[in-house]
Amino acid sequence: MKTPTATDTATTKNATITITGETRIYGILADPIHHVQTPQRMNEHFAALGHDGVLVPLHAGADTLAQVIQGLRGLRNLGGVIVTVPHKTAIVGLCDEVSDSARLIGAANVVRREADGRMVGHMLDGEGFVGGLRDAGVEPRGRSAYLAGAGGAANAIAFALVQAGVSRLTIANRTRAKAEDLKQRLARLDAAADVVVGTPDPSGHDLVVNATSLGLREGDALPLDAARLTPDQRVCEIIMQPRETALLRAARQRGCPVHYGAPMLAAQIALMARFLGVPGPAAAA
Amino acid sequence: MKTPTATDTATTKNATITITGETRIYGILADPIHHVQTPQRMNEHFAALGHDGVLVPLHAGADTLAQVIQGLRGLRNLGGVIVTVPHKTAIVGLCDEVSDSARLIGAANVVRREADGRMVGHMLDGEGFVGGLRDAGVEPRGRSAYLAGAGGAANAIAFALVQAGVSRLTIANRTRAKAEDLKQRLARLDAAADVVVGTPDPSGHDLVVNATSLGLREGDALPLDAARLTPDQRVCEIIMQPRETALLRAARQRGCPVHYGAPMLAAQIALMARFLGVPGPAAAA
Repeated sequence: MKTPTATDTATTKNATITITGETRIYGILADPIHHVQTPQRMNEHFAALGHDGVLVPLHAGADTLAQVIQGLRGLRNLGGVIVTVPHKTAIVGLCDEVSDSARLIGAANVVRREADGRMVGHMLDGEGFVGGLRDAGVEPRGRSAYLAGAGGAANAIAFALVQAGVSRLTIANRTRAKAEDLKQRLARLDAAADVVVGTPDPSGHDLVVNATSLGLREGDALPLDAARLTPDQRVCEIIMQPRETALLRAARQRGCPVHYGAPMLAAQIALMARFLGVPGPAAAA
Repeated sequence: MKTPTATDTATTKNATITITGETRIYGILADPIHHVQTPQRMNEHFAALGHDGVLVPLHAGADTLAQVIQGLRGLRNLGGVIVTVPHKTAIVGLCDEVSDSARLIGAANVVRREADGRMVGHMLDGEGFVGGLRDAGVEPRGRSAYLAGAGGAANAIAFALVQAGVSRLTIANRTRAKAEDLKQRLARLDAAADVVVGTPDPSGHDLVVNATSLGLREGDALPLDAARLTPDQRVCEIIMQPRETALLRAARQRGCPVHYGAPMLAAQIALMARFLGVPGPAAAA
């Protein structure tokens, strides 16, 4: 999975927290770990909610992930863990239970520890994307969507778009078999969903989403045929660095409204905290 | 090691810290956990040193201690753990190596993770007591010491006093066999040490130390025969609550200088950080 995820990049002001013997513990499992922004973001979020919790970086390689999870099970004050590259696939087999979508995606990025000690996994990358759209005032329900990519991030976003009720989802991927496979798994979640495998041409969709890694590096090819974009289409990125990818520049030039990568992370932090059982503000209860 | 930033500062008795993906992780293992003060103390100390580390409470019962330690071994960014009740004895068997004194005491309260992943245990309760004495300007080397108690704390303090070079150590305990056993183990550390088993009478010692739990509760009996105290004797407590025990009140009434329980903790925080490999201020290097 090369696509940047919500937990990987983006800068934020630093959160300050106070840790006592009563503070609930959360972690983010990653390798490498130095670049993760989730501790800053989540600790800031906990502070804003008045939650006595702290999230710390847990640097575990693929060789010790199972051992670390088994150890974390022995901690009574663990609230749960967030999971990112390269552990999102392996974590599924280490949970006691995962959500239907996480099982069909084959990946999870958050694991809640239940009161009885059970570890329950879920994938929030896609819901974070949809949440970010909604935070920007864009409701995907009833709209058609074009998705470039069929990798890890694209899988999560495809499931979340179907669950959000898009009228039609077109998946376009350089390796067509991966798009077909994703389509089959989406059908197992929702047999009635209108999912098709498409081409580089995004014409005829309300939402156009890049979920490939193209755009991360200067000089990358465009992930789709931008010459076919029309001003009635909203063009969305999940790449946060650079903020303005070549695709978004092309979309602007063609008169399209754009949606940046950052809102996906902001939305996901709140969704992760809620999934982890962190008491939210009264309005969100 | 990340350069400390303006946000890495302690403001009040509660430390405020900033956690990023580069922050080194430390824990304190305890059961119960809610009352521990080490997170506040150590995080304040890290901040004062400009060390990018965070210590969090790890609530593990005796039934999961081994499992938790095994899991912690899998974390590459773990600096080490502090260990307190009820795990100080069990942790010895879970380390790859322990110091001679920890082995002879049969307990450890700090475990460092070496660069090669090995877990090395040591007992700092006694060194914390000696360090607190020295911080108060009292050098035990060459002085005679009377120690009331032969339990966990007394064991640690006895070893530290012998290592600090007291001229003579008298151990007095209600159950005499425990004092004899402690004497035998001290002889294995230092065959030349002058250690004797004594009575409730503390006469003839420069330092008089209470390492029993008598004084914790209102109405406790005195741990030694306070009527025999003379003004040339310094009377020392390790009990912190209450600050002024009945023994210290009696000692004051007899004109003795006293040494409170609090300096032992303050000294131990610094010793623990040093043992855990935290870079100290230049002056201490």
